[in-house]
Amino acid sequence: MSDQPYYEHHVFFCLNQRQPGERTCCADKGAQAAQEHAKKRIKQLGLSAPGKVRINKAGCLERCEEGPVVVIYPQGTWYTYVDKEDIDEIIDSHIVGGKVVDRLKI
Amino acid sequence: MSDQPYYEHHVFFCLNQRQPGERTCCADKGAQAAQEHAKKRIKQLGLSAPGKVRINKAGCLERCEEGPVVVIYPQGTWYTYVDKEDIDEIIDSHIVGGKVVDRLKI
Repeated sequence: MSDQPYYEHHVFFCLNQRQPGERTCCADKGAQAAQEHAKKRIKQLGLSAPGKVRINKAGCLERCEEGPVVVIYPQGTWYTYVDKEDIDEIIDSHIVGGKVVDRLKI
Repeated sequence: MSDQPYYEHHVFFCLNQRQPGERTCCADKGAQAAQEHAKKRIKQLGLSAPGKVRINKAGCLERCEEGPVVVIYPQGTWYTYVDKEDIDEIIDSHIVGGKVVDRLKI
């Protein structure tokens, strides 16, 4: 068994969808488009592979009021985001550059 | 900001469902029942909370042929399982006891 993580960065986007009138949810704040954008970008960068990066869909991560949220493991870094530019900054700074994006961290 | 992880054990079950004839998938091997069982058991143990444990649904974790699979972060430990007894062993040993279940680790 290796001590290397299976993915260097395993990224989980909360895509949870709630019904109208229920507690707020990430799906109502553009989570699906953000996840698809991240997945496409990581693939374009050639980082989509074991030992590198995996962009994942996830059910409710239970930080709804702080959403939309994404968590990157094994670092355990949580982010919120507004738009694709925020996602790009997380990819460029955290994933590619190894530097946490403080302004988006929660 | 705290260095403590938001969840001590963040558990992601792959629930990916593929169409018949496609590559094998976790959903065809009891993944949904396993995830529901784990979620219920963690709640019964009083461990379902920030700072403790979160049992999550996830999309394809891309280790299909080794499935059904589950990954526990931030430890980054991957397991396969067959039945609820395996899930209980992962909960009792890894999550409650802090001891990796070598026979199920992948």
